[in-house]
Amino acid sequence: MILKIAVDVMSGDHGIKNNIDGCIQAVNEFGVSLILVGKENEINTELNKYNYDKKLIEIINAQDVITNEDKAGMSIRKKKESSMVKALYLVKEDIAQGVISSGNTGALLSGATLIVGRIKGIKRPALAPIIPTEKDGAVLIDAGANVDSKAKYLQQFGIMGSIYAEKVLKKNNPKVGLANIGEEATKGNLLVREAFPLLEEAPINFIGSIEIRDVFLGDTNVIVCDGFVGNTILKVGEGLAKTIFKTLKMELLKSFKSKIGAFLLKDSFRSLKAHLDYTEYGGAPFLGVNGCVIKAHGSSDAKAIKNAIRQAKDYLENEVTKEIGKAIREIEEAK
Amino acid sequence: MILKIAVDVMSGDHGIKNNIDGCIQAVNEFGVSLILVGKENEINTELNKYNYDKKLIEIINAQDVITNEDKAGMSIRKKKESSMVKALYLVKEDIAQGVISSGNTGALLSGATLIVGRIKGIKRPALAPIIPTEKDGAVLIDAGANVDSKAKYLQQFGIMGSIYAEKVLKKNNPKVGLANIGEEATKGNLLVREAFPLLEEAPINFIGSIEIRDVFLGDTNVIVCDGFVGNTILKVGEGLAKTIFKTLKMELLKSFKSKIGAFLLKDSFRSLKAHLDYTEYGGAPFLGVNGCVIKAHGSSDAKAIKNAIRQAKDYLENEVTKEIGKAIREIEEAK
Repeated sequence: MILKIAVDVMSGDHGIKNNIDGCIQAVNEFGVSLILVGKENEINTELNKYNYDKKLIEIINAQDVITNEDKAGMSIRKKKESSMVKALYLVKEDIAQGVISSGNTGALLSGATLIVGRIKGIKRPALAPIIPTEKDGAVLIDAGANVDSKAKYLQQFGIMGSIYAEKVLKKNNPKVGLANIGEEATKGNLLVREAFPLLEEAPINFIGSIEIRDVFLGDTNVIVCDGFVGNTILKVGEGLAKTIFKTLKMELLKSFKSKIGAFLLKDSFRSLKAHLDYTEYGGAPFLGVNGCVIKAHGSSDAKAIKNAIRQAKDYLENEVTKEIGKAIREIEEAK
Repeated sequence: MILKIAVDVMSGDHGIKNNIDGCIQAVNEFGVSLILVGKENEINTELNKYNYDKKLIEIINAQDVITNEDKAGMSIRKKKESSMVKALYLVKEDIAQGVISSGNTGALLSGATLIVGRIKGIKRPALAPIIPTEKDGAVLIDAGANVDSKAKYLQQFGIMGSIYAEKVLKKNNPKVGLANIGEEATKGNLLVREAFPLLEEAPINFIGSIEIRDVFLGDTNVIVCDGFVGNTILKVGEGLAKTIFKTLKMELLKSFKSKIGAFLLKDSFRSLKAHLDYTEYGGAPFLGVNGCVIKAHGSSDAKAIKNAIRQAKDYLENEVTKEIGKAIREIEEAK
């Protein structure tokens, strides 16, 4: 069977041209089969600009678009003709096995749960982006899909994150840590205290609490947390990195000497920025749904779209959905 | 009445020499009255090195020390002869009005609550450091004292943070925001949803939710959150800033060109580091206890100790404790 990946080409900040550029790069580099979902005439206009293997790209026409201003759940139910909804239905009907969208996150999460559905036994699917660290990236799960989690959800996040890190990121026996705060309250809050023994029981390499200040060292491969905390980690990271670069830029423009220094360091700064750039790490899979659903960053450029497609390919070839289902079944049956 | 500030000179990573250096600087610059609490002979040896107004420094002998390895609550009860416990008793007995320690945070928070006690009507005291932003610093409350907060606590955090920002940071009508996560769940978690109307009721300039990614822009003067989330914000900030500087350093050593660039930018980097340095902003007051209790950063150098003393002086001169008590009484009576 040929695995197909549906791409919501109407989504994201950079529009259809950018997205199709990324799709063509992916087709030509990885030989993947794609289904582009969006306004057919616009897609064709773009595709005509490129050389590629025509067998590898299909088009599904969708005249409507879900925007970032749309309400998450409502738009999924009302905008049946939107590219996002149509792309999700392709996965539900097994016409495509994976879907990528850089659109409205809330809508994509609702849509994936409502249309594609959960893996049997999974309480709550979770968003699992990769955050940059000093070493490799680390999987952060949940990054914001569930803002009032129960301990049992966190146990499943640990299992799903571990499988993803092993299968897609190729980490051998990935280290899973529970995000916790420092010396002020070593034992953590109620949720963390309840989740701890459940993660110890799980068939994963659970290494215990990881202090949040150490998340960026990169020694832990999977960081488990409630969605509110995970989103906080993600957003503080994004916000602070921006602030640091802005402040640095102001410093660099202060004097003639600093301007020359800045000129000489152009490559270093670019390299640092790339290292910290979330888009370099592809998108965030929504783990626990019954198929491969990847949320690409809203600001994804063509390269980021290409990376998200490669990620979906790795996800599908390594049967992550099936592996998650198996692990959850085993832990339930062991009881 | 002369206001006196007790300093736990045995605390912190840099030891007694460093702390007394900071105390002398504060005495000579601000004319404050200090009570140094610690090993008397060691204190005297240090003091003999300096010129200062002898009337402004008293010594209270304390032979024991609470370390970072000590358990918080236990050490307060057992180590009666420690510098931290003795310093806190000085405030309880109104011999000193404020206390500064850069020691074990958990012990200081427990000790402050147990020994100094809460302001009448305050449910939970909260730790309120200032975090660096693109503009000024912002007050983050609670940064880790309470890891399972109720909505009512968050209302009080907003009131206390607002008074502190107005009286000590000299913000006119400070803007108070409730830390919330982005588009993935606009309404936030249960706690945030419950706290929102209570903060609207409070006699403060509540501006609604603030997205965590925007915290570092500095448009909001007071960021209200549960201690687990607040500690996460603080620790992600610390950890990421370290990672960025470490990665940048590696980039700068990569080539001859980058080394020259780095040399030319030495001042710029130093200035950026200073901007992001928490110790520049003094310590974190523990708001809601019945006196001025300030937790200085463990790595406080002499200048940071001096800044924490100035902060205590501003706190006391502006009667922050009394103002908090008044505001809490008013909101309770209004019901």
